Amino acid sequence: MTHPIVEEVELHGHIIDSLILPKVLDEITTRGASYVLKEIRLGQRASDPSYARIEVQAPTAELLDDILDQIHDHGAVPVHDRDCQITPADRNGCFPDGFYCSTNFRTQVRLGEEWIDVEDQEMDCGIVVDSEGLAARCIAMTAVTTGDRIVMGRHGIRVFPTEMQARTELFEFMASPVSSEKPKGVTVREIAAAMKKTRAAGEKIIAVLGPAVVHTGAGELIVELLKMGYLQVLFAGNALATHDMEQSLYGTSLGVSLERGLPAAEGHEHHLRTINTIRRYGSIQAAVDQGKLTSGIMFECVKHHIPFVLAGSIRDDGPLPDVITDVLVAQNEMRKHVPGTGFCLMIASTLHSIAVGNLLPAWVKVACVDINPSTVTKLMDRGSTQTIGIVSDAEPFLRSLVNELMKT
Amino acid sequence: MTHPIVEEVELHGHIIDSLILPKVLDEITTRGASYVLKEIRLGQRASDPSYARIEVQAPTAELLDDILDQIHDHGAVPVHDRDCQITPADRNGCFPDGFYCSTNFRTQVRLGEEWIDVEDQEMDCGIVVDSEGLAARCIAMTAVTTGDRIVMGRHGIRVFPTEMQARTELFEFMASPVSSEKPKGVTVREIAAAMKKTRAAGEKIIAVLGPAVVHTGAGELIVELLKMGYLQVLFAGNALATHDMEQSLYGTSLGVSLERGLPAAEGHEHHLRTINTIRRYGSIQAAVDQGKLTSGIMFECVKHHIPFVLAGSIRDDGPLPDVITDVLVAQNEMRKHVPGTGFCLMIASTLHSIAVGNLLPAWVKVACVDINPSTVTKLMDRGSTQTIGIVSDAEPFLRSLVNELMKT
Amino acid sequence: MTHPIVEEVELHGHIIDSLILPKVLDEITTRGASYVLKEIRLGQRASDPSYARIEVQAPTAELLDDILDQIHDHGAVPVHDRDCQITPADRNGCFPDGFYCSTNFRTQVRLGEEWIDVEDQEMDCGIVVDSEGLAARCIAMTAVTTGDRIVMGRHGIRVFPTEMQARTELFEFMASPVSSEKPKGVTVREIAAAMKKTRAAGEKIIAVLGPAVVHTGAGELIVELLKMGYLQVLFAGNALATHDMEQSLYGTSLGVSLERGLPAAEGHEHHLRTINTIRRYGSIQAAVDQGKLTSGIMFECVKHHIPFVLAGSIRDDGPLPDVITDVLVAQNEMRKHVPGTGFCLMIASTLHSIAVGNLLPAWVKVACVDINPSTVTKLMDRGSTQTIGIVSDAEPFLRSLVNELMKT
Amino acid sequence: MTHPIVEEVELHGHIIDSLILPKVLDEITTRGASYVLKEIRLGQRASDPSYARIEVQAPTAELLDDILDQIHDHGAVPVHDRDCQITPADRNGCFPDGFYCSTNFRTQVRLGEEWIDVEDQEMDCGIVVDSEGLAARCIAMTAVTTGDRIVMGRHGIRVFPTEMQARTELFEFMASPVSSEKPKGVTVREIAAAMKKTRAAGEKIIAVLGPAVVHTGAGELIVELLKMGYLQVLFAGNALATHDMEQSLYGTSLGVSLERGLPAAEGHEHHLRTINTIRRYGSIQAAVDQGKLTSGIMFECVKHHIPFVLAGSIRDDGPLPDVITDVLVAQNEMRKHVPGTGFCLMIASTLHSIAVGNLLPAWVKVACVDINPSTVTKLMDRGSTQTIGIVSDAEPFLRSLVNELMKT
Repeated sequence: MTHPIVEEVELHGHIIDSLILPKVLDEITTRGASYVLKEIRLGQRASDPSYARIEVQAPTAELLDDILDQIHDHGAVPVHDRDCQITPADRNGCFPDGFYCSTNFRTQVRLGEEWIDVEDQEMDCGIVVDSEGLAARCIAMTAVTTGDRIVMGRHGIRVFPTEMQARTELFEFMASPVSSEKPKGVTVREIAAAMKKTRAAGEKIIAVLGPAVVHTGAGELIVELLKMGYLQVLFAGNALATHDMEQSLYGTSLGVSLERGLPAAEGHEHHLRTINTIRRYGSIQAAVDQGKLTSGIMFECVKHHIPFVLAGSIRDDGPLPDVITDVLVAQNEMRKHVPGTGFCLMIASTLHSIAVGNLLPAWVKVACVDINPSTVTKLMDRGSTQTIGIVSDAEPFLRSLVNELMKT
Repeated sequence: MTHPIVEEVELHGHIIDSLILPKVLDEITTRGASYVLKEIRLGQRASDPSYARIEVQAPTAELLDDILDQIHDHGAVPVHDRDCQITPADRNGCFPDGFYCSTNFRTQVRLGEEWIDVEDQEMDCGIVVDSEGLAARCIAMTAVTTGDRIVMGRHGIRVFPTEMQARTELFEFMASPVSSEKPKGVTVREIAAAMKKTRAAGEKIIAVLGPAVVHTGAGELIVELLKMGYLQVLFAGNALATHDMEQSLYGTSLGVSLERGLPAAEGHEHHLRTINTIRRYGSIQAAVDQGKLTSGIMFECVKHHIPFVLAGSIRDDGPLPDVITDVLVAQNEMRKHVPGTGFCLMIASTLHSIAVGNLLPAWVKVACVDINPSTVTKLMDRGSTQTIGIVSDAEPFLRSLVNELMKT
Repeated sequence: MTHPIVEEVELHGHIIDSLILPKVLDEITTRGASYVLKEIRLGQRASDPSYARIEVQAPTAELLDDILDQIHDHGAVPVHDRDCQITPADRNGCFPDGFYCSTNFRTQVRLGEEWIDVEDQEMDCGIVVDSEGLAARCIAMTAVTTGDRIVMGRHGIRVFPTEMQARTELFEFMASPVSSEKPKGVTVREIAAAMKKTRAAGEKIIAVLGPAVVHTGAGELIVELLKMGYLQVLFAGNALATHDMEQSLYGTSLGVSLERGLPAAEGHEHHLRTINTIRRYGSIQAAVDQGKLTSGIMFECVKHHIPFVLAGSIRDDGPLPDVITDVLVAQNEMRKHVPGTGFCLMIASTLHSIAVGNLLPAWVKVACVDINPSTVTKLMDRGSTQTIGIVSDAEPFLRSLVNELMKT
Repeated sequence: MTHPIVEEVELHGHIIDSLILPKVLDEITTRGASYVLKEIRLGQRASDPSYARIEVQAPTAELLDDILDQIHDHGAVPVHDRDCQITPADRNGCFPDGFYCSTNFRTQVRLGEEWIDVEDQEMDCGIVVDSEGLAARCIAMTAVTTGDRIVMGRHGIRVFPTEMQARTELFEFMASPVSSEKPKGVTVREIAAAMKKTRAAGEKIIAVLGPAVVHTGAGELIVELLKMGYLQVLFAGNALATHDMEQSLYGTSLGVSLERGLPAAEGHEHHLRTINTIRRYGSIQAAVDQGKLTSGIMFECVKHHIPFVLAGSIRDDGPLPDVITDVLVAQNEMRKHVPGTGFCLMIASTLHSIAVGNLLPAWVKVACVDINPSTVTKLMDRGSTQTIGIVSDAEPFLRSLVNELMKT
């Protein structure tokens, strides 16, 4: 047997409790390499940080590189590191080959032997460094301009995976398992508490809503959230806005009367006539201003100056004049609202929830409510302890949440 | 081509609106036979009954027989009928070959040229006629005794499929499609109305409950229903009763605290210790009498003399001393509670709900609530307009239902 | 009581078997009106068409109008009809108020006392009549130009709902219930037969594919379909194309090796690097031409000149340079491929399947395969007997389908 | 603040990689206690075992006890341990209060200062020690006889949670996440490999089958498994056996023809007539012996002397004469087949799969195939790396599995 290729890496923080060390060791052995724990200092108490120095031994240089790339995302950095490598973009709209691909965890790059925080943290982006080499931020592939100074490889970059806190809060406990068989009262209380905390901290709450919010009759509950000041930004699609306004103009949602539960005559056309009406006014704002639209989620958003982004999708009817039909433009609109956000409430929307999840840094707490467990699972797959998944029904869930928030 | 074999059948009632005529014609052609509509008298108005006389033409006598058997369940009876045929059972616990297999619709048999109502209507049973030939009732296969006079074939039997009423009530509207995207407020109101109507009529309400009722924290809401007089019989399994009493004895359900949402120490053992404790007392009644059990669904049942049937299943731990471990005995216990029942509320239980559904005649209204659409679909597959399926979450759904029932 | 407002309507065709008459009568009574069946001529045999003349009686003119609008979609036309009413569009991108809203059924408009077929039949559109008043076609709301002559109201328009054939074919049988518990062998045989028939008729087969096709390892089976000539157009999104090419470039899909089932090092980045690579080439075509992409679904499409439309969505990473990021442009691209299509195979895609379903006329047969019953249900809600829903797993389902198609 | 109550515990084995140490520390802090890591020796290499000595500090003796109970299941044992405590059962059918509640992991009890392996390992049981104090085995609550020497508390008992192996095998990789989007080819290959290995080791394979196996047309594939020697024991319910024999006697399953996919005339009665027929013969064996039953799963079981246990459930029609209607008797019958089992294949059955899962020790590998992700999740919740969950469709999955097993 030939000599293995080796490299030493370090891990800092709550690496035992947060499962970081086990994950790193697992990655190494699963991929066919081995390790020697050169040094380990475990915090004696729960609050003490720990430290590990690991020698990774791989049969080939290529495998070693693969493994170092992989464990880098868990915060493992080479003991002897250097400044990050930078290559100018050679064309618009794409990165140079070998670009560093970002996570949603807090990240630093080493520039001039200093560790600098990366701004606008977002997963699946690249990192661009300004011309003075003093600042770095995440940049989407499509936003790259020729000459942009792009961070390459893995050296001179360090990632801080979310560390565990003692699981005395629901968010930590609920983070892992998705089940409809959880106590719902305590879930609602914890989400309400997180929303109150977010407001108290002066941070924004984003709501991402699917049309089932309106179909199940929960539109008025969203209006309550909005009036109480628990909703600062609304992300949705054509369907949510259309059915909300259909409800206001015709008293139906997808043609079903919320009062009587019966399909209205011509009901299936109401949504199309609603869209046509708003198109004739030119915008939702205009329909409110001219007294056509007088109630509902969209009306209240206009009235209370709550910004909304309606992103188009391939299955849209119409769509409404406010819908942004180019998905890249819509993504950029949504991105603008991320800074300052402390909480995100996603209800009954798969497409938009995943889209928003992609944009949020790992430290924004997310509650994802859907009656379909697979939607909740998909959302949580991307997150870690940041996302709490609740398998529940939009209307009764929101009713309980509003009741809880109303308690002082 | 040879001459087809023919037979004339009649259909009475709301055979157009209730889709009975189309279904019958469809059965005939789908199976490769044809028909001639010899006579048709449609009610001119919605309230008028209609009548159709149909000549069924099949290429073989065997196929004709198959078709006549099939359309018989939709109420199609031969024009020239005779008394039903009776054969004595030749051994215990099974029917003679060729026995008539019952539906859950109202049924009559012709005895001495008179049409007699069949009692204890239940699907998938046989019909036994008393020795005087004056009365008939459904009988389970396992209850057959040698010599029982069993109804055979199809002649002299007529079935009255549930006819449509104008769909001005939710139950009719909601009966067909299963979706989580229905307005929930109106659903709750309609179920509450049906429960009030049932009570006003002096009929019983049966609840069939799965353990998720307790896991989601809805146990106290069932207690409310029970105290308000909206629950006369409880059907459940070992798990519901165990987790309810675990909640009372340890404050947890499957080891999860409903107060804090966190798993308790030793939590996974609580259910087993609960069962052991009740076994040591000898019965739930004894545990209440001796002051060990002081709250929860089972406690209130004992206190308010609400009868319960706990049916065993192969996956039970323990089980509790009150659980009937022989499933045939348990079925018979449940059967005893069916007469006089006007409404059945099934929540978060697949196994027990289907079991109870099998026992109920078609005219007992059923509301089936489950967060899993496939459970709801399975239940509704057996029923017709009798079952309303609601895809929702047990705890918030019950909370809304209790609130609605509290309104005068 | 005042005199009711009345109007006579006619129904032609297989109005009993196809449930059209019952549905119409049900709509009338459900909405609080009543009817008198003035005349009814039922086909004596299954092949004979029937005829009904119905007087609708409503308490108010408004309700009567509502009902007439509603039953119009089931083919009920006023006995004394006149030419359709036409109003010029008063602005771009929207219809005049009161426009006729199309279904996906075959439709005719009356122009100059002649009934003319509507072209480009598509649901949720309007109908535009050419300047000579000799031709009519469906038009999307966004495509309307000021001055377009738009069909209004309901008069002079007739709709031909799909009529029932004897349900001797699977498509008719399977059309209603969605269940995972269907015999899979016969389903596969029937879909294969429908695909062969489509090809024999010189019609096109569209495939709508979600990324799970690649994740489950079924990419090679799509390649087989394509090579055998059973796929003429591909509709998909960024994810399907990306993961297919990731599979070709890195041997992984979402970072999971299809060979070993284990996540590859850096796996989660492979999809982003794949997109970046193709963006650097400029297009999928260019990556094939320059020898970078040498296998997989997209490669074979390029090689065999199979057109594909990749429609963007708000959750896309990248996206690929071939993705149409404006959803209205993408819809129009897809529309171009609809004429001449006889069959559509939708696999593991909710968003794109619903989008394509919106564009297809009711006579194009659709098979929708998804492991999630709610996706299948959603698709089938819009269709009638045209859509067959199969709850199954993409890879093994496609394997069986390819095997079946290979049999001569 | 008062002095905390403390106790020292030890952990041995692969406590980092297998996540045992992080779990233990997490339990301690989550419950409001703290710890000091008194000593830690980590294996330098993946193959080296590790050791940790932890001082647990709790504010109250009660909490300390709770925590010690909880972490005991993860293998944490007090440093200074003593013989296990034994109390004789004071009545039949229940344990003394404070009994030790077993896990499904390998367990030892200390008797006469020696550590003795516990036999018949099964979760949620007690442990009984023989009169000489030389042997110990798990015992179900209902099997307890007055005077049985029952192990109490936690002292003198140690548990060996399954340790991690390098995750180079699918079973380890697949064990955690449940998703329908996994590569299916590799899954099938790995399951086939595990089945071959089991056979080569002379161990038994148990199949647990639900009725969808027959409904989807996979009965013949189970027959193949059985003929190839890959099925030594069959666990199922009344429905699987009935529909299998209905298929043999009538060519239908739940009345649906597998040949034509169409519901047969009288189809819904076929299952009841099948049960009645077998009841008339007296047993499945008798129906085979007398030439009535000539094909299908049950026929082949009889022919090849494959033992089967048909456990009754509350929703059974009939049931078949072979069904054990008392669930405790059925559990005991199933228990008898567990020793010598190396693999368990569960397909499309929730109830029976969970029941069997409860009986198996943690070292028997389980593959659970169901099209409903929630069934798969439920099964996996109880296991650890022992269970692999596959969200797939019974028929095509089994077809691929049989093909794979046929390859030499």
